[in-house]
Amino acid sequence: MNALNRTGYIHLIVVMSVALICFSSVTAAARPNCLPSWNDGASKEAIVRFVTEISRKGSPDYVPPAERIAVFDNDGTLWSEQPMYFQLAFVLDRVKALAPQHPEWKEEQPFKAALEGDLKTVLAGGEHALLELIMATHAGMTTEEFEQIVQDWITTAKHPKTDRPYTEMVYQPMLELLSYLRANGFKTYIVSGGGIEVMRPWAERVYGIPPEQLVGSSITVKFEMRESGPVLVRLSEIDFIDDKAGKPVGIHKFIGRRPILAFGNSDGDLQMLQWTTAGDGKRLGLIVHHTDAERKWAYDRNSHIGRLDKALDEAGLKGWIVVDMKRDWKVIYPFEKQ
Amino acid sequence: MNALNRTGYIHLIVVMSVALICFSSVTAAARPNCLPSWNDGASKEAIVRFVTEISRKGSPDYVPPAERIAVFDNDGTLWSEQPMYFQLAFVLDRVKALAPQHPEWKEEQPFKAALEGDLKTVLAGGEHALLELIMATHAGMTTEEFEQIVQDWITTAKHPKTDRPYTEMVYQPMLELLSYLRANGFKTYIVSGGGIEVMRPWAERVYGIPPEQLVGSSITVKFEMRESGPVLVRLSEIDFIDDKAGKPVGIHKFIGRRPILAFGNSDGDLQMLQWTTAGDGKRLGLIVHHTDAERKWAYDRNSHIGRLDKALDEAGLKGWIVVDMKRDWKVIYPFEKQ
Repeated sequence: MNALNRTGYIHLIVVMSVALICFSSVTAAARPNCLPSWNDGASKEAIVRFVTEISRKGSPDYVPPAERIAVFDNDGTLWSEQPMYFQLAFVLDRVKALAPQHPEWKEEQPFKAALEGDLKTVLAGGEHALLELIMATHAGMTTEEFEQIVQDWITTAKHPKTDRPYTEMVYQPMLELLSYLRANGFKTYIVSGGGIEVMRPWAERVYGIPPEQLVGSSITVKFEMRESGPVLVRLSEIDFIDDKAGKPVGIHKFIGRRPILAFGNSDGDLQMLQWTTAGDGKRLGLIVHHTDAERKWAYDRNSHIGRLDKALDEAGLKGWIVVDMKRDWKVIYPFEKQ
Repeated sequence: MNALNRTGYIHLIVVMSVALICFSSVTAAARPNCLPSWNDGASKEAIVRFVTEISRKGSPDYVPPAERIAVFDNDGTLWSEQPMYFQLAFVLDRVKALAPQHPEWKEEQPFKAALEGDLKTVLAGGEHALLELIMATHAGMTTEEFEQIVQDWITTAKHPKTDRPYTEMVYQPMLELLSYLRANGFKTYIVSGGGIEVMRPWAERVYGIPPEQLVGSSITVKFEMRESGPVLVRLSEIDFIDDKAGKPVGIHKFIGRRPILAFGNSDGDLQMLQWTTAGDGKRLGLIVHHTDAERKWAYDRNSHIGRLDKALDEAGLKGWIVVDMKRDWKVIYPFEKQ
């Protein structure tokens, strides 16, 4: 708890410093320090112009702080989603950890493939196989027990390509953007297809986004009074899928106002971008385009993970900003700065 | 929009003034101005002591601001629920407004009873009848259309006993408590059995609680792309019931942290009080007890609306504060002050 508090405190100081630097200049165009890892160019300029215009009192585009809601996809937008979503890595590790209690998994698919690390067979099983793995590993315990499992995993698991903790595989320019928006009165939300409870235990420490500003997929939870006191038990039942057309629904359900800015990276974010930018007044839609094969990955229309196809076409029609990773970002990960 | 902004601005000034007054004294016990409509006594003292202890850095009971979550039931806790829940009044008015398009309702129950204002027959139909009325009046339109219907209704509907707008039937001591908590770094939430979308359009103006800090019952919503653009359509299908054992589930789903303070008034709030006060560290559970037959209503164990029976027994065992309306509150409604 103390370590977390200290991190939170340092985070606060960083945010306040950024705020001081950003607010000390008079015009937004003269605030290059707000987004130091962003190259000058059309994308950065569009972001700064938008924030300046909606923040300026008396401007026809002014938006009061209470309505400055910004939503971000997580996988592929705020951090790496390659070579596989972190939640899939979590699921595979959990299957291995639970295998001694399930000798039958050695013979049963999709568990057999998961235990053998045979990702191809797991993915070939489609949504059904993934759901089976999720239910076997995400349900049956209390919410507090599950939180501890996630917390333990995220502090020890390593990214398969870089051998770094997943929480270091975040995009430095996006961390700066989150801080910049908050310094300008925005409330920043994650709206992810991933499970809400696999993000809540670490999102505040890593992104500065508290548990109550997360929207995600969930399984049903049930209140139970035990001898030791009340608990919430996680059931093997889907409650809500926060992906594609589910994202605007999740935004409406949890936030209850239409955002003025949405940032995604794949076709899973298309409806969130449509919903956000169709609102009255000034809105900003943004897409991370993974164009950097050298420093990270390059993928879009034909990728199995994070396919970006329809949303890329619509970006052109709707004037959404396509952030070109290679061109627009000076560094990708925080550790590159060191 | 401008009127709302002005209200928000005035609200901000009031909150800041309260904060200034409250923080200008050194000890909490010497801050009578924070809760001017509360009589001195055990209830007020318990509230001020709790807030002081969890706010004092270095205290073993210190809670960082990010974790200062306070949850409030709405009907009967923040405003009147007698002679009927405001949502039921809304439903009955909507049935009347929609009746010309449904000539068959003149003969069909529970619509016939609703049209005739025969509340007894409506309630005799139980949950099933209420659900039927809700689905007929709350579904089939877009979320924006429904918001406008609620907004129009709440600005014109009058309370049947006092002939005042429902939004004036709020409890002045509770408005002060909400402001006092926020001035002390709390995030205040409503956790109501009522429909989330019948509260969101006015809760910010009346309570200073923004849409994203409401937890309530809901029906399923679906994303649809129309020629005019994307919409969210309300379906005739229950999504979530935020009552009784559903309240801790709703808190977990929407907030993702356990509150440190919960305030209810009926057995519908029992599990929310249990869940909140069973957490580690200092917690405060509170119950409004309607004891004032003269100024308002007196009811508890045998009431159909807002029955307070099990929770009253448990309050004694668990040390929850039972706020005695007659003894603890100087005024009940804001208009009594004038």
